[in-house]
Amino acid sequence: MCQLLGLNSNLPTDICASFAGFRARGGRTDEHADGWGIAFFEDRGLRILNEPHPSCQSQLAEMVAEHPFQATNIVAHIRKATVGTVRLENTHPFSRRLWGRDWVFAHNGTLVDFVPRLEGDFRPRGCTDSERAFCWLMDALQHRFGDVRPDFDTLFAWLREAAVALSDYGVINFLLSDGELMLAHCSTRLSHVLRQAPFKRRVRLVDTDEDCDLGQGVDPATRSVVLTTVPLTHDEAWVNMPRAACGASGTAVCWPPRPRWRGG
Amino acid sequence: MCQLLGLNSNLPTDICASFAGFRARGGRTDEHADGWGIAFFEDRGLRILNEPHPSCQSQLAEMVAEHPFQATNIVAHIRKATVGTVRLENTHPFSRRLWGRDWVFAHNGTLVDFVPRLEGDFRPRGCTDSERAFCWLMDALQHRFGDVRPDFDTLFAWLREAAVALSDYGVINFLLSDGELMLAHCSTRLSHVLRQAPFKRRVRLVDTDEDCDLGQGVDPATRSVVLTTVPLTHDEAWVNMPRAACGASGTAVCWPPRPRWRGG
Repeated sequence: MCQLLGLNSNLPTDICASFAGFRARGGRTDEHADGWGIAFFEDRGLRILNEPHPSCQSQLAEMVAEHPFQATNIVAHIRKATVGTVRLENTHPFSRRLWGRDWVFAHNGTLVDFVPRLEGDFRPRGCTDSERAFCWLMDALQHRFGDVRPDFDTLFAWLREAAVALSDYGVINFLLSDGELMLAHCSTRLSHVLRQAPFKRRVRLVDTDEDCDLGQGVDPATRSVVLTTVPLTHDEAWVNMPRAACGASGTAVCWPPRPRWRGG
Repeated sequence: MCQLLGLNSNLPTDICASFAGFRARGGRTDEHADGWGIAFFEDRGLRILNEPHPSCQSQLAEMVAEHPFQATNIVAHIRKATVGTVRLENTHPFSRRLWGRDWVFAHNGTLVDFVPRLEGDFRPRGCTDSERAFCWLMDALQHRFGDVRPDFDTLFAWLREAAVALSDYGVINFLLSDGELMLAHCSTRLSHVLRQAPFKRRVRLVDTDEDCDLGQGVDPATRSVVLTTVPLTHDEAWVNMPRAACGASGTAVCWPPRPRWRGG
């Protein structure tokens, strides 16, 4: 299994505090030591930092935890290999281009015997069930909607159905973003919290037992959603997503989009 | 204008020493302060680190100079914006997928009025002449060769012609790699040096005036080619590529592939 971390914000912000706790789970406070990765969307640009090594020991991950890369959408992952060897090409998040945009995908769970026929542009580079699922999603989206991204409601409804279909093969909690939208599916376990003014000035990280100030250097107009497999802080109102639920946000203003929850 | 740095090696090796000098040109010893990026191929995986900021001041670039990421192919770039704003999506190297592989591209020079019609899968995300040239190359390769990468000689011959065609629009020195091959085109300025045993134990970096040991921690069987716009070290036999020349290497064993030089 693995763990997920995501951020969707109306204004560029950093994820240093959350990532500091999250990276500890990659080999120190938890067993997800087979690689890690993080994708930052900055305007139309995408930066992915990743390594097939434990994040708790990684110099690169330490830098990410300390350096305030500003982004409106962030997707991070720590890996415990269940399908696929420990190699760079098997680390999440994966990325592909569709409709002139970069999409990134990270998965927690294991899909059993999910071997779709992929003959188009979207083929796996590595050998994980997760990358296969992502390629299948991209391939199916391209086939279904052609050359243009559909409107949000249509896209969301389709992905919700697709996620449920994938759940037939096993556990699939995932985060998917194109830099504008963040879509999340909870098959078994995913939590989120809304951060907005007035920001909590002191919360305690579950994994490092350190305090952090969520308002430090943050524009008071910032409104962000942080998603993760297991809550990262004490002192915050984390919400467990229901099983088989999807959530989505474009600007974090409307998160959680209750009309779009899907009970299953 | 910009500057290029590339490495092609028969065994995974790092580029710390060369990059330490190179990054100084991003705002300290030279004026290329509008962004930087570096792509590492690790097996079938690709890692690109990039920022729209001066590399000389960047914490991430400092980490790259100190952390021995091991790769067989590396493409790096520091940017002085001539076409396109200073944004992440305009930093090189650019990457696209073709024939089931990642390709990366970095460009030094300026192409004037190069606005090809791009209606297929390869469209620019940013607004640089460089990314347009890369997308055009990828698009033309896909049209010319279909779904399968041609043999090396065929690919090389085609790229040589394409590079000359691009030169009609201005200056185009570039590095192109799919993680196996490294292809270089010299329109005006590009140098390379071969590093192999016995490694020089003390060379002086042009930009930092520091000494480095090219053999430290390096497998004696390593044979690598380093390419750059302007030589990085004193004390090494850098070779200036002739203008309008192409070079290519798959394993660095055959670099420079003299029969393939193209006078123009």
